Amino acid sequence: MSPPDSPRGDFPIAKDDPAAGHQHAAGKTFGRSVKRLEDHALLTGTARFVDDIQAPGMLHAAFVRSSHAHAAIRGIDTAAAAAAPGVHAVFTLEDLRPYLATTDLVTALPSPSFRMSLHRPVLAHTEAAYVGEAIAVVIAEDRYLAEDAAALVEVDADPLPVVGDCRTALDEGAPTVHSSAPHNLVAEFDLSYGDVDAAFDAAPHVFGESLAQHRGGSHSIECRGVVARYEPLDDVLTVWSSTQTPLPARQILCDLLGRGPDQVRVVVPDVGGGFGPKLVFYPEEAVTAVAALILRRPVKWIEDRREHFTATTQERDQIWDVEIAVDDEARILGVRGTLLHDHGAYNVRGTNVPYGAAAAMTLAYRVPVYRLDIKCVATNRVPVTPVRGAGQPQGVFAMERLLDRVARELRLDRAEVRRRNLVPAELMPYPTPMKTRGGMQVVLDSGDYPRCQAMALERAGWASFAGRQAVARAQGKRLGIGVANSVEGTGRGPYEQIKVHVGTTGAIHVYSAAAAMGQSTRTMLAQVVAEQLGGDMDNIMVVAGDSANGTLGFGGFNSRQAVMAGSSAHKAALEVRRQVLEVAATVMQLPVADLDIEGREVVAKNAQARRTLAELARAAAGMPGFLMPGPGPAMQAMEHVVINDMAYGNATAVAEVEVDAETGEVKLRNIVFSHDCGRVIHPKVVEGQLLGGIAHGVGNALFEKMAFDENGQPLTTNLAEYLLVTATEMPPIALAHMESPTPLNALGIKGVGEAGVLPMAAAIASAVEHALEDCGVRITQVPISPVELLAAIEAARQ
Amino acid sequence: MSPPDSPRGDFPIAKDDPAAGHQHAAGKTFGRSVKRLEDHALLTGTARFVDDIQAPGMLHAAFVRSSHAHAAIRGIDTAAAAAAPGVHAVFTLEDLRPYLATTDLVTALPSPSFRMSLHRPVLAHTEAAYVGEAIAVVIAEDRYLAEDAAALVEVDADPLPVVGDCRTALDEGAPTVHSSAPHNLVAEFDLSYGDVDAAFDAAPHVFGESLAQHRGGSHSIECRGVVARYEPLDDVLTVWSSTQTPLPARQILCDLLGRGPDQVRVVVPDVGGGFGPKLVFYPEEAVTAVAALILRRPVKWIEDRREHFTATTQERDQIWDVEIAVDDEARILGVRGTLLHDHGAYNVRGTNVPYGAAAAMTLAYRVPVYRLDIKCVATNRVPVTPVRGAGQPQGVFAMERLLDRVARELRLDRAEVRRRNLVPAELMPYPTPMKTRGGMQVVLDSGDYPRCQAMALERAGWASFAGRQAVARAQGKRLGIGVANSVEGTGRGPYEQIKVHVGTTGAIHVYSAAAAMGQSTRTMLAQVVAEQLGGDMDNIMVVAGDSANGTLGFGGFNSRQAVMAGSSAHKAALEVRRQVLEVAATVMQLPVADLDIEGREVVAKNAQARRTLAELARAAAGMPGFLMPGPGPAMQAMEHVVINDMAYGNATAVAEVEVDAETGEVKLRNIVFSHDCGRVIHPKVVEGQLLGGIAHGVGNALFEKMAFDENGQPLTTNLAEYLLVTATEMPPIALAHMESPTPLNALGIKGVGEAGVLPMAAAIASAVEHALEDCGVRITQVPISPVELLAAIEAARQ
Repeated sequence: MSPPDSPRGDFPIAKDDPAAGHQHAAGKTFGRSVKRLEDHALLTGTARFVDDIQAPGMLHAAFVRSSHAHAAIRGIDTAAAAAAPGVHAVFTLEDLRPYLATTDLVTALPSPSFRMSLHRPVLAHTEAAYVGEAIAVVIAEDRYLAEDAAALVEVDADPLPVVGDCRTALDEGAPTVHSSAPHNLVAEFDLSYGDVDAAFDAAPHVFGESLAQHRGGSHSIECRGVVARYEPLDDVLTVWSSTQTPLPARQILCDLLGRGPDQVRVVVPDVGGGFGPKLVFYPEEAVTAVAALILRRPVKWIEDRREHFTATTQERDQIWDVEIAVDDEARILGVRGTLLHDHGAYNVRGTNVPYGAAAAMTLAYRVPVYRLDIKCVATNRVPVTPVRGAGQPQGVFAMERLLDRVARELRLDRAEVRRRNLVPAELMPYPTPMKTRGGMQVVLDSGDYPRCQAMALERAGWASFAGRQAVARAQGKRLGIGVANSVEGTGRGPYEQIKVHVGTTGAIHVYSAAAAMGQSTRTMLAQVVAEQLGGDMDNIMVVAGDSANGTLGFGGFNSRQAVMAGSSAHKAALEVRRQVLEVAATVMQLPVADLDIEGREVVAKNAQARRTLAELARAAAGMPGFLMPGPGPAMQAMEHVVINDMAYGNATAVAEVEVDAETGEVKLRNIVFSHDCGRVIHPKVVEGQLLGGIAHGVGNALFEKMAFDENGQPLTTNLAEYLLVTATEMPPIALAHMESPTPLNALGIKGVGEAGVLPMAAAIASAVEHALEDCGVRITQVPISPVELLAAIEAARQ
Repeated sequence: MSPPDSPRGDFPIAKDDPAAGHQHAAGKTFGRSVKRLEDHALLTGTARFVDDIQAPGMLHAAFVRSSHAHAAIRGIDTAAAAAAPGVHAVFTLEDLRPYLATTDLVTALPSPSFRMSLHRPVLAHTEAAYVGEAIAVVIAEDRYLAEDAAALVEVDADPLPVVGDCRTALDEGAPTVHSSAPHNLVAEFDLSYGDVDAAFDAAPHVFGESLAQHRGGSHSIECRGVVARYEPLDDVLTVWSSTQTPLPARQILCDLLGRGPDQVRVVVPDVGGGFGPKLVFYPEEAVTAVAALILRRPVKWIEDRREHFTATTQERDQIWDVEIAVDDEARILGVRGTLLHDHGAYNVRGTNVPYGAAAAMTLAYRVPVYRLDIKCVATNRVPVTPVRGAGQPQGVFAMERLLDRVARELRLDRAEVRRRNLVPAELMPYPTPMKTRGGMQVVLDSGDYPRCQAMALERAGWASFAGRQAVARAQGKRLGIGVANSVEGTGRGPYEQIKVHVGTTGAIHVYSAAAAMGQSTRTMLAQVVAEQLGGDMDNIMVVAGDSANGTLGFGGFNSRQAVMAGSSAHKAALEVRRQVLEVAATVMQLPVADLDIEGREVVAKNAQARRTLAELARAAAGMPGFLMPGPGPAMQAMEHVVINDMAYGNATAVAEVEVDAETGEVKLRNIVFSHDCGRVIHPKVVEGQLLGGIAHGVGNALFEKMAFDENGQPLTTNLAEYLLVTATEMPPIALAHMESPTPLNALGIKGVGEAGVLPMAAAIASAVEHALEDCGVRITQVPISPVELLAAIEAARQ
């Protein structure tokens, strides 16, 4: 097999290929690559991102940040800044305190694993714990004046010993991340089932690996941003934020400011990528909001890229020491080990990244016993929260490295080792031996993992690779191929409310607090609703990510919005459909069974009769003195589907690389990615999500590294120093689709936003190791930089 | 009996008097005169009326109005005004046309009775049809500059023949109210049942009266006002208006501007009285809104009192010719007649005032056959719409005048004639022979009308009046006493939605589009909700009259808000109570039956356990990955009760007057008012409504007269020329309460906002006639002015 065609130089995508597995019939709008609701505004430049928001009288914020990774703050002199031209105010925590019900941001999800609370303050006041931590804010006429004045704020800070490396942070006598912290162990827990040690004691083969995984930030095109405006006429504080989680943000602001839910409105405008860090509630959101309240003027803060490198949360180092026990046929008998997780300077989200890593490690395979002991360790670095994949790519990497080791040790084909261990389709739905921390059994809901791998292998020409490799080698080229499987928990519950309403114009309004961050959430909701209500996408008006619309939910993370908001939208649309047809039956004096909704009308199937949705909405609303029998004044439903279980998607990545052993350069030749996210709502959007995720994964595997020196100073704070993957580095990518509808929701859908990332680093590491098989180079860390790879080649040669 | 005490000179109110009839036990908040939610803001000057609204950059509107009652507009020269200092724009209809989907305000309720449409234009353009009709608007920096510039607008108008008197408007050859109108008959219909002419032919006695009734305007303390602001960030046009009907106003604005329901928000701030005219949608609301859209600046228009006299709708003349047929015992055999109703220059609401008059005429009594033929006639006067009572006082006046005639002719006591004919309690609920125009049978739902009259008579010392009268006469004083009964349709359906929500602060939020105009609507809703949800009025946050809160309904008119919104609030509160207890039962692990809500907590009846509503709200909302079983994420309900039938309240007024036959002065000595509005939610509020209505009725009977000359020029355009009743004219008033709960809603409540007005003019006319019995003066019109009364005395003496 040859690599997929790429005649136009863009990503070729295999579609409608009989080999591509189950494809379900598309509906009127569901399952079709309809024109996106978002496209017109984006293509015509009329989309509105936070920085596009202009409000009369708006002021601009610039933050004074810690230049030390750890320092005691003795004093903050704001006098010179306050006197600078155009400055309206300079605030420290002391200035804000009278307006705050609490000065700490309590944002971490509760967990019994915590060994300390470690909340982040609204502004650092007596101690700074990472470079970039906000200490004061300057509010001025424009951003230039604000930054100039911010430079005049004198922070009298005494450096304190820095906790720079999680590997030594728990050593006796190590400095602590805060003066008040008793130690650096933020949380400690394990994920385990079965008698692990007994299984290992009895196993014929046990292999161990020590792995160091590094992941950088999310690096969305748009950095963070906030505009806050207090409207005295309504007594409403409106906060436009590029957050992924508007309702949790509103709750935190309400708690912080002592305001009721009607008095704080959080609106998510167009957002240029979220990828995880924007699910966190940040000091800058709180401070900008309080400043607008105090000054009675709108205030804008837009994060610059340097701030994004230092003040926006990232994922950080994970150190894995893991062992696998297998039988002579390479069947897995057990997995065990430890995971050390760099938690950063504060506990802003909790333990879900290392938990997700631990859970994802074994899911694709039948692993009879398992134990991972996990420690979350505080360091004087920016706090750690999920980035696309949320730990799961690290778990996959650890598992796949072990399986490559097994193949090598037992001299088996790497794909064959996996095939023997993948959870087979006939066991689905498969109750794994694993339980969540909440005690719920982890059940793999649907899928055919072996078939998914087989599709990828076939398309990638896995079986014939040795021949191609030999030909290339004869030409002086060193090729390698790698494979990795991933299973991903998607669609985090418990619910995301949706309101659907047929207005008196006949337009169908869909309301959700689900936040769109570039993943076509509005289009997705419109497709699901239009499917039941006439099929006219242009008649669906979606308001998403606005706390004022009265729907409740949690926002966008964990590949949950299509699953959760989509399912609720489906339920609401069905209910509104029922109401529309009931109203129409009364108005048109025909049985419901004879009616259908076509476009913006209800039509009688066997007659000429038709009524517009506008007419029906007005009829349903009644008039003084009269309401006809029926569903009530509004054809409207507010629904939420509760799903506490996750829907598990799966994927197989095959990467083919060429390694230059003289330079250490790794060049990707092509990627085949087969995946299953249940029923596909919008094929083009799914492809976009997958391709983006794959690119993210390539970056993690080969390029992205957020470096710090021994004093906790970040060394990579711009896009010249920190390498993001670009189109130049991306090879042709072939996607292969399968559709195994999940039984967990009525639409059969699973999340896909993170799927592309999960197996990529593992597959590329496998391929690089394969290309260097004869050198004996072992890949035990990512990213695989040329310098480090060259050093490994050198070391292996010696 | 002596008149009720009035030691402090204020209105004495009979309360908790065993003679006062059925009183029902009060609940925690329901039925008690709790502190009103409105009081704090009103007493501390922090209430916000439309004119209190200040928005940055706000401009001010002044209208150019027709000085002719009827004129052809040849041209409008705005150049000088546009060039005046501080003027931002001058708009005629032609300027607004590009922004309007339609240039007519279609506001009348549909009716088959219409003989022409007669819609009011947004601004008069080719023809003006009443003095005060808006022709152009000037938008300037302040109101002074706007008015100065408005005086510079040159309207080139040719006077046209004026239709000034509805009595001649249908004559052949009469001018028409508009050049394009074929005639002046706006609507024609009848209300009738039974074989009327046969009954009259067979009746032993038939008496006829010709009556002329005049009613003025509503004259709320606050005139009308609008502030409109377009917010480009939200694409929302917000209109603050002193309207009684925010949602219909939103619908009209949406239709007019081609905007969706999310793009127009109508907010009713504090309102200083509505009384009917504010239920209409006005040209000024449309023009102010469009101006804000065009200019992208907030625009305010506040009506001055002169504008209120000329541009705000009023009630107008009704000419009744009616006959009553009775048997020898004064039992009513039938009523028939005609009603000519002055409709004003446009059809802005429809025919509900004359319809209400016709329906109210007979309701208190058993009237076996009935026919009233009604003509609504256009005149070149400001349009006619309901004022407090909405025609019903006129119907009561006509009926009671006939009954006084029967008593006189048959030499019976006036009260005895009524007693013999009142619908007796044992017939309740009483299906009258009357049907609504929609074909629904009119059913009197509850009440004891004879007892109500008996209470009033006893308290007023009716039986002993002749003695008092004789004593006074000996002292040279001419006393009279009169009685009248009224039955009033209240609680116009079909619904008014209410949302109740327990927020995460533990506060209970109540949302409604029901508009408060001074009648304590927020307190009423809070009482109903608090009754079920802890009883703490301070924990109930009510947002009323804001279209943005998502509830649907019709607003405030027809004494409907307590009945309709109150019933929905009760239903929603019960549902939320169920949810709160269900959540608490799960959280506290106790059975629902053991729990109750006290204040802001759920408490276990037999244990120490308690949880705050705030804790329960947070528990109910769940967290990522988990929602406990229960009612769902929000303890919240949106409910609407549908009631198409009216709840009929009733009242008896007894008025005692002293008439000075030399001056024509009528002095009220005291008023006794017994009434039944079902269960009372807030006794003090009910008393306030009754006293206000009684004062309104006194004004109608004796003082208020909106005069026009033969050219249609209004002669009374300020409060020196137009006499409103003041405290000086008001006598002591004794109120007597009865409570006959209606079976139509769960709370047993009926409306009371208009009840005070209905029987007052009839009772006072009866008393004046009684005082002048020996002179043979007949009262056939209201108001009874000294000049006219003196003329009648003179005429009778001749």
